[in-house]
Amino acid sequence: MGFFAEEISISTNAKVDVIDITDMVLNAIKKHSPKNGLLALNLKHTTCGITINEAESRLMRDIKETLLNLIPENKSYYHNSIDTNAHAHLRSSLLGDSKILPIINGKLSLGTWQRILLLESDGPRIRHLTVTFVGE
Amino acid sequence: MGFFAEEISISTNAKVDVIDITDMVLNAIKKHSPKNGLLALNLKHTTCGITINEAESRLMRDIKETLLNLIPENKSYYHNSIDTNAHAHLRSSLLGDSKILPIINGKLSLGTWQRILLLESDGPRIRHLTVTFVGE
Amino acid sequence: MGFFAEEISISTNAKVDVIDITDMVLNAIKKHSPKNGLLALNLKHTTCGITINEAESRLMRDIKETLLNLIPENKSYYHNSIDTNAHAHLRSSLLGDSKILPIINGKLSLGTWQRILLLESDGPRIRHLTVTFVGE
Repeated sequence: MGFFAEEISISTNAKVDVIDITDMVLNAIKKHSPKNGLLALNLKHTTCGITINEAESRLMRDIKETLLNLIPENKSYYHNSIDTNAHAHLRSSLLGDSKILPIINGKLSLGTWQRILLLESDGPRIRHLTVTFVGE
Repeated sequence: MGFFAEEISISTNAKVDVIDITDMVLNAIKKHSPKNGLLALNLKHTTCGITINEAESRLMRDIKETLLNLIPENKSYYHNSIDTNAHAHLRSSLLGDSKILPIINGKLSLGTWQRILLLESDGPRIRHLTVTFVGE
Repeated sequence: MGFFAEEISISTNAKVDVIDITDMVLNAIKKHSPKNGLLALNLKHTTCGITINEAESRLMRDIKETLLNLIPENKSYYHNSIDTNAHAHLRSSLLGDSKILPIINGKLSLGTWQRILLLESDGPRIRHLTVTFVGE
C-alpha cells in the first residue's frame, strides 16, 4: 500500500478571503507520483473552511458574502465573551474543514470547473493544510 | 491493495431536483465485489450537491426548499454579471460535493434511513459522479 | 493493507445537544494501533450531524443556536405531515454526516483547537458512529 502525508502552508491576505489552492495541492502530490487512490485535504484550523467550486473571481466574492450573510460577524455570540471570532468558527463548521478527492491513473480527478478553494474567516494568517494519500 | 473507480451518469429532471442515487451507487460497486474499505463519491460539477438523508418524498421537498430559502435565486450575485447560476454554485458549496462511506464485510454501510441524495440546482442536466474505492 | 471498523455508541442528553466525542474516537482506534492512513467517521443516522471545531462550551452553544436559527423547528415542513423532526433531518444535511481524518505516525492528526463534535438534533437518544480505517 502507498501512503504519504504533506503539509502545505497558505498565506491569506485579508480578514475574509477566498483563495484558489488547487495548484499548491497539485505541487504537494507531484513528487510522490501517486497512481490510484484517495487524497484527503484537512485544514488544521477551526476558523477557516475548504470548498470545491469554480475559481471565478465574482463567484469567489459571492461565496464570501453568502457566508457573511448566513453567519454575520456582528451578532451576539456566547463565544465572543472570551474571544472575538465566533462567526469565523461557525462559518468553518458550515463550509467544512476537509475534502476527499480521487486520484485516478496518476491524475487528481476534478471536473472541468472544479477548483479547491480556501475560505479564510479570521485572517490574515498562515494556514496549514494536511494532504494525505492512501492508495498505490 | 484493492482499487477501482467508476463513473455514474445521472439524468436530472428539473431545474431544482432531489434524486435518490443509492441504487446507482450500489450497482456501480457490485461487479467489483469490494470486501472492506472506503468508498468516495465525488460529483464532477459545481452547481449540484450530494447529501445523505432519508429518501422520504416530503423531506426531499423540504431539502430543496431549505436550500432555496438559505440561498435564494433572485438575489443580486456578482457571478450573475457573466452567468445566471450563482445560486446553484453557492448551494453546491453549502451542501458539499462529495461523501465518504465505509464498505464492511462486502456491504455498503448505511444506517436504516440513510440514502444517498443528489441535489440538482441547475438542471435538467446529465451529471457525473465518480465512485472510488480503496481497500481489499 | 490494514483495515478495521469499529462502532461507537454515544448517549445524547437533550433534544438539541453538542457533544465532544474526540476521546471516544481515540479509544476506538487505540487497540488497533494504526500507523498511517485515513480514518472515516460516519454517523448511521439522518437527524444528527458531525463537525470539527473548538470544544469551548460557549462556542458549542453558538453552534447549536446557529443551526437552530438557520433551520428553525417551528416552520411548516412537508415532512412534518408524517413526522415531527424535519428540522433535525435538515440540520443533519447542512452540517454533514461524516468526516475524514488522517492518521500519521500513529497519531490522529488534529490541529491544536480541533475536536470532533456531534450535533444531536432529535434527542435524547443513543447514536451510533462507525469508525473505519484504511492504511497500514
